[in-house]
Amino acid sequence: MEYYSEKISRLISELGSLPGIGTKSAQRLAFHILDLPKEKVERLTGTILEAKAGVKYCSKCFCLTDRDICPICSNPNRDPKTVMVVETTRDMAAYERIGKYNGLYHVLNGVISPMLGIGPQDIKIRELILRLQQDEIEEVVIATNSSVEGEATAMYISKLIKPAGIKVSRIANGIPVGGDLEYIDEVTLLRALEGRIAL
Amino acid sequence: MEYYSEKISRLISELGSLPGIGTKSAQRLAFHILDLPKEKVERLTGTILEAKAGVKYCSKCFCLTDRDICPICSNPNRDPKTVMVVETTRDMAAYERIGKYNGLYHVLNGVISPMLGIGPQDIKIRELILRLQQDEIEEVVIATNSSVEGEATAMYISKLIKPAGIKVSRIANGIPVGGDLEYIDEVTLLRALEGRIAL
Repeated sequence: MEYYSEKISRLISELGSLPGIGTKSAQRLAFHILDLPKEKVERLTGTILEAKAGVKYCSKCFCLTDRDICPICSNPNRDPKTVMVVETTRDMAAYERIGKYNGLYHVLNGVISPMLGIGPQDIKIRELILRLQQDEIEEVVIATNSSVEGEATAMYISKLIKPAGIKVSRIANGIPVGGDLEYIDEVTLLRALEGRIAL
Repeated sequence: MEYYSEKISRLISELGSLPGIGTKSAQRLAFHILDLPKEKVERLTGTILEAKAGVKYCSKCFCLTDRDICPICSNPNRDPKTVMVVETTRDMAAYERIGKYNGLYHVLNGVISPMLGIGPQDIKIRELILRLQQDEIEEVVIATNSSVEGEATAMYISKLIKPAGIKVSRIANGIPVGGDLEYIDEVTLLRALEGRIAL
């Protein structure tokens, strides 16, 4: 990128270090930003800094929020007896989008991954157990991803919680709606068969 | 995006207003930024603001640069008798990348587009004419895009310059290298035929 002057090159390489932004997109973004009015650029950088400074974990469910207790945890209309365990705030938002789940969440902010050196103590599992001891919770729905790490984390949490007599469930594996059986992997096909529902 | 708290939503919508960044990418970027150490976030915003404040037009060729005269215009090894006319600084960089063009550039910073209300006076055509009058230039290579607007701009510039006795050329239309004739549009096929070269 020596074809651009230093300040432009540095901007391109900074933008290119963001996830999903390749060199071409970074160039496009950089020139777009250089083309924006000064106020808009300042609003962009201001918003970034403000979010970075103001966003923290909800002290109850550990999702990322700018309040002490997030809007979901502080909503009296949500059912406090059901807690869905998810890996990230984005996974929580994915379930919020469908608008059909009315319980609370617990965001692990990660997943157990021995490969990456992430153990149970590195994610919010201890905090989940504490919550289960303090609050009256009847069901824990484990909605970690359907990856090796997500499954292992689900198993780990399930084994920890079950002895306390709390109902533990796991979101279903199966054919995605609209999916074509021909293109679906064998493990998913098997899980879909095992999890079949009487009609 | 009411599933996220206000500061996060605002960050996502700011990032989503950038070109090529959809809602999903904006969310991914936002959480990546929130996850970065504070210093890295400050470096990112600092680089953006610095580039915005320090980048201006080269006073000779009107490319975007952080100097008065860009590195290409001030390079004594470049041939000052040939000027390639391009639409944007990015187009200039595209030709610089191949490293085979040794002349100078003139960046129009736009293209004549009656649809968008952009006339010849809105892009750097007057400045090109001035340059041709002041400097000893033998050939002008017009390398605007091969779009309707790019072609119209090329024709307009060509008609302005030709009477001064300066050689004017246009980069060739044809089959892209590696291109499959079967999938190439008719106009390109015709241009490739018309522009055939004796072997």
